Amino acid sequence: MPADPRQGLRFGRIPITKVQPVLEEGKFPAKGVRGADVRVSAVIFREGHDALGATAILVAPDKSEAQRVAMTPGAKGTDAWEGVLTPDHEGLWTFAIEAWGDLYATWAHNAQVKINADVDVDVMLEEGSQLFAAAAGGAQDTDPDAAHVFRQAAATLADASLNTIDRLAAGTSLEVRAAVARFPLRDLVTRSQEYPLLVERDAAGRGAWYEFFPRSEGAMRHPDTGEWTSGNFRTARNRLPAVAAMGFDVVYLPPIHPIGKINRKGPNNSLEAGPQDPGSPWAIGSDEGGHDAIHPDLGSVEDFAGFVAAARDLGLEVALDLALQCAPDHPWATEHPEWFTTRVDGTIAYAENPPKKYQDIYPLNFDNDPAGLSAEILRIVRLWIDRGVRIFRVDNPHTKPVWFWEWLIGTINAEDPDVVFLAEAFTRPAMMAALGRAGFQQSYSYFTWRNTKEELEEYLVHVSRESPGYFRPNFFVNTPDILTEFLQYGGPQAFKIRAILAAMGSPLWGMYAGYELYEHVARPGSEENIDNEKYEYKQRDFAGAEAAGKSLAPFVTLLNKIRREHPALLDLQNLSLHESTDEATLVFSKHKTIAATATGPERKDTIIVVINVDPHSMREGEVTLDLDALSLDGLSADGTFMVEDLVTGATWNWGKRNYFRLDAHLEPAHILYIRR
Amino acid sequence: MPADPRQGLRFGRIPITKVQPVLEEGKFPAKGVRGADVRVSAVIFREGHDALGATAILVAPDKSEAQRVAMTPGAKGTDAWEGVLTPDHEGLWTFAIEAWGDLYATWAHNAQVKINADVDVDVMLEEGSQLFAAAAGGAQDTDPDAAHVFRQAAATLADASLNTIDRLAAGTSLEVRAAVARFPLRDLVTRSQEYPLLVERDAAGRGAWYEFFPRSEGAMRHPDTGEWTSGNFRTARNRLPAVAAMGFDVVYLPPIHPIGKINRKGPNNSLEAGPQDPGSPWAIGSDEGGHDAIHPDLGSVEDFAGFVAAARDLGLEVALDLALQCAPDHPWATEHPEWFTTRVDGTIAYAENPPKKYQDIYPLNFDNDPAGLSAEILRIVRLWIDRGVRIFRVDNPHTKPVWFWEWLIGTINAEDPDVVFLAEAFTRPAMMAALGRAGFQQSYSYFTWRNTKEELEEYLVHVSRESPGYFRPNFFVNTPDILTEFLQYGGPQAFKIRAILAAMGSPLWGMYAGYELYEHVARPGSEENIDNEKYEYKQRDFAGAEAAGKSLAPFVTLLNKIRREHPALLDLQNLSLHESTDEATLVFSKHKTIAATATGPERKDTIIVVINVDPHSMREGEVTLDLDALSLDGLSADGTFMVEDLVTGATWNWGKRNYFRLDAHLEPAHILYIRR
Repeated sequence: MPADPRQGLRFGRIPITKVQPVLEEGKFPAKGVRGADVRVSAVIFREGHDALGATAILVAPDKSEAQRVAMTPGAKGTDAWEGVLTPDHEGLWTFAIEAWGDLYATWAHNAQVKINADVDVDVMLEEGSQLFAAAAGGAQDTDPDAAHVFRQAAATLADASLNTIDRLAAGTSLEVRAAVARFPLRDLVTRSQEYPLLVERDAAGRGAWYEFFPRSEGAMRHPDTGEWTSGNFRTARNRLPAVAAMGFDVVYLPPIHPIGKINRKGPNNSLEAGPQDPGSPWAIGSDEGGHDAIHPDLGSVEDFAGFVAAARDLGLEVALDLALQCAPDHPWATEHPEWFTTRVDGTIAYAENPPKKYQDIYPLNFDNDPAGLSAEILRIVRLWIDRGVRIFRVDNPHTKPVWFWEWLIGTINAEDPDVVFLAEAFTRPAMMAALGRAGFQQSYSYFTWRNTKEELEEYLVHVSRESPGYFRPNFFVNTPDILTEFLQYGGPQAFKIRAILAAMGSPLWGMYAGYELYEHVARPGSEENIDNEKYEYKQRDFAGAEAAGKSLAPFVTLLNKIRREHPALLDLQNLSLHESTDEATLVFSKHKTIAATATGPERKDTIIVVINVDPHSMREGEVTLDLDALSLDGLSADGTFMVEDLVTGATWNWGKRNYFRLDAHLEPAHILYIRR
Repeated sequence: MPADPRQGLRFGRIPITKVQPVLEEGKFPAKGVRGADVRVSAVIFREGHDALGATAILVAPDKSEAQRVAMTPGAKGTDAWEGVLTPDHEGLWTFAIEAWGDLYATWAHNAQVKINADVDVDVMLEEGSQLFAAAAGGAQDTDPDAAHVFRQAAATLADASLNTIDRLAAGTSLEVRAAVARFPLRDLVTRSQEYPLLVERDAAGRGAWYEFFPRSEGAMRHPDTGEWTSGNFRTARNRLPAVAAMGFDVVYLPPIHPIGKINRKGPNNSLEAGPQDPGSPWAIGSDEGGHDAIHPDLGSVEDFAGFVAAARDLGLEVALDLALQCAPDHPWATEHPEWFTTRVDGTIAYAENPPKKYQDIYPLNFDNDPAGLSAEILRIVRLWIDRGVRIFRVDNPHTKPVWFWEWLIGTINAEDPDVVFLAEAFTRPAMMAALGRAGFQQSYSYFTWRNTKEELEEYLVHVSRESPGYFRPNFFVNTPDILTEFLQYGGPQAFKIRAILAAMGSPLWGMYAGYELYEHVARPGSEENIDNEKYEYKQRDFAGAEAAGKSLAPFVTLLNKIRREHPALLDLQNLSLHESTDEATLVFSKHKTIAATATGPERKDTIIVVINVDPHSMREGEVTLDLDALSLDGLSADGTFMVEDLVTGATWNWGKRNYFRLDAHLEPAHILYIRR
């Protein structure tokens, strides 16, 4: 008896290839979020003409099988299969795929074709009867209803007193197909290896971020002397209720540490700071302390704790900036010159992009003393975690070695998997992808510079379908560093359009204070706000603007309310594009099926966004919906369904093709909810 | 002292990602051919602005380092790097990539920019001096010439008596750059893992194939009775000198085994064979024997050996068909019914694609007795290897499980790595790719159905740049199963065009006898020759046609001669496209640099093919060459170079832009050799 040749081969009985999301054959885990859908796909094929099926299988961190989902085939000829898995709690899960010969589909196809052609009629009926008889035996214990259906089909197929048509019909009835869907008739079952899926908490993949400078909130200028009194954590707390009321989840603070006094930058990035200029918070460190200290103007450790607690009471998390660079007077510069690059003249190298110089900043060097510097940064991160921070927005991670982030985030998350890191990297695609693989839970993205319908379509498909295994984009509409031309010249409607795109297009979005006031004047020659808050205190009258009807805050509030009421908007991988006849009108939808629970039935949540992305025009045309993406099964007999515009409250009957008219100066978008 | 945080991480100091050719992280080896160039690429990047370099490293089967090649960067922003490695003998090689900080490029860039801007002049000069002084020490043992250059540069840079311009120039001279190219100044050297590269013999990846039916060669019809006498291995030997004279490397024979008598097919695939009809050689097996036997009409085992020896004496290898299927009267059908599928009525299932039936063929079933059936097939393959066959053309491999091929080819190649398998699979891309990964050395391809310029451009790029790691296409221009519409209706010029495309476009190409006679009439409704040789004897007057000037054989001979004289044509991964203004004129080039050896200097071989792929027209226009792809460095001062048309012998001076005029009815193509 020869040995089984199949042992130790790389190909299984049915090849399962190109499994996604898989990073380097599972060397890195793919990213998931508690309760969020994960699209699992593979290319699966077999020899010959027989049918096959595929099942996606989710395995919980405790190794128990948590979910089995039938995969569906993709476009003809691609051999692509796809299914959606939904892990329901945090941890390191795995998933696998089973491929199998579909005995029922093979028989049903052959029997129908051959009996129609009057070929092998008796053989096909008898083959069906035997197939169902065997299936009945197999299903008896786990699905007695299916077993009953199979037994009846077997009997009718074998009943020579009936005519051929009726016998065949018994094997291909809706009832049989439903039973087969529950209890597939499988052979040659082949299982892939298991691939890792790291499921993280909500804040890793969902949330609305609001950025503000605590020193500005409550800052006052003496009317006579012109001298400033800085805002601080106690005065800044007063801003938190309004932020919470707008529906934000995260308050992100630029660095709160002492600011360098040597080579401090003045207003509008000028080289000379006056005695009253507070300096850039990103120039960290002075004789008042370094990354472990709090700027004396902002208050004490207790004041910070009070700020964090006040935020928490309002349902807000505080995200802190982690900017690993130093002002020349940072304590490390004298205590640990080996953590910097020393030039041949004995001075420490400042930051530069020759010939540009940034003399207020010393970059760190991770190669002279990797162990010592890493240990100190770990100490600092742990310190802020102890002080209540669970989210870090990391400044310029792409200027540090990638290995360092793999180590730091891996070390911290091993101690506390709830800590979230956002990568502020605007650089080339390879580095941005690597930072995601290295462990960053989320990343700033190119969204900021994707403005046209075509650009947005391409980018939305990329982030929702191609890269979510390693990259969770946070769609910031602006930052202290970025005021795009689209916002500078698009008028208030441009601010509205970009907020809708961000809040509806991504489960993570963010804005920096002042956006709601349509602050749109840039420093000439730059892509930053003029009189930038990075170098100055900023007093803003949010309430006054709102009272005068000159604030986007009410609309932002509506967007965040819609997000909270519609779970489809808080998933990343569920976006589909639809067609419109207008070149500036983008149409996308997000759909989520929420499984039945002990307390409620299955629920379907679907949002369709139709948006005119040209802030200067009125657009009209026809939308053609991809109905398959909307999971409409059984919704209506005539192919129409009711949609509700969540902005205006209007309702319409929509179908496959629908007229629209969107005036950017009135409402640039429909945000439509499918009523079921 | 904290532990080194870098231990055990997945990211190295400089990330090296997306290395190619790598199949599933090295689970399968990439394919290589002795002496053929392998394009190695990766996405490599680092933090910050400093320059980096990369080296591709080839490691021989004995683990010695065989080659180090500087990689060159790709398009800006992609972080892509590429290099070409050339393994020089067969075996399981590996390759790796080293990435490193390029100290010289970083300094030279910064020094030039900063000194031009009058920033940090002294520091940059001193930094350069120290850099070269250290480099001189490092290079002293291995490259004393470079060390000398570095020492001089260090001295001049440090010489404060000279002016700044001269000091800087000493650090950026051509001499310094040449020394740095030989002895790069590297830091942070990071090495990738090693990836497998299976290097196989010439015949795995190079060769011109000629297919003919030995029973036709010497077959005679009795003028009175109309009865046929079959050709045999002794008469078929007479055809071999002409095949060799045309410059072919491989003679491929359809199955030579006994042919089933039950349900034998007659002329033109008719269901009824007459007593004189020889049947399809692919319906294997009868009472005269199975896959281990030779058809009695063809002769004995000794006759076959004589045929193989005669071919070998002419420089031809014999490729045998391995068609794993049986006629109903194959001995296995009675001795091993478990190797087939038995239907519920007790009969063995014939081949079918419902409702079509192929009652002359029983397909094998690999699931009932995988060990027994596999062992028998292994026995048969070994038997034919013992009888002198080293190349198998495998019929319909996509109708057998992929694991079987992984096992069979793996087992045979472990015993004899010179045995080559060609996959005759015309099916969906996923299966074709899997068969390549499973071990098939070469594959039939979609070339047959790629006719327009656009289709050909896309396909040539795919096979030469995207898939060569797992797929070596054999460009057959026709087969007994395939006579494309292009050939049916394109006239003799269509045959010429397709032969040029195949022979010049791919290191592997093939034709089936009769192509040189422009046989172009199809059986109505099919894509096969009428009166197909699969079911009949075929007498052809090759010599008469040639004497009458009605044969493509002389041109085929020229094509194969050009191939043998130009190694560039025998590599797969060295094809580049060029532009032409005409929509039917395709332009591609193949370039190979042959390294210097003990007996000769470095040599560059470059062929440019300009071909009108519309057989019905005259085309003219302008070719724009991608000069970078032609490795012209230093060829001429005025940007022109001499090309010789290997078809007509004409020579021209060509440059970046060149006029062409190609009349398909005269010569449809220029095959240009760059004279150096």
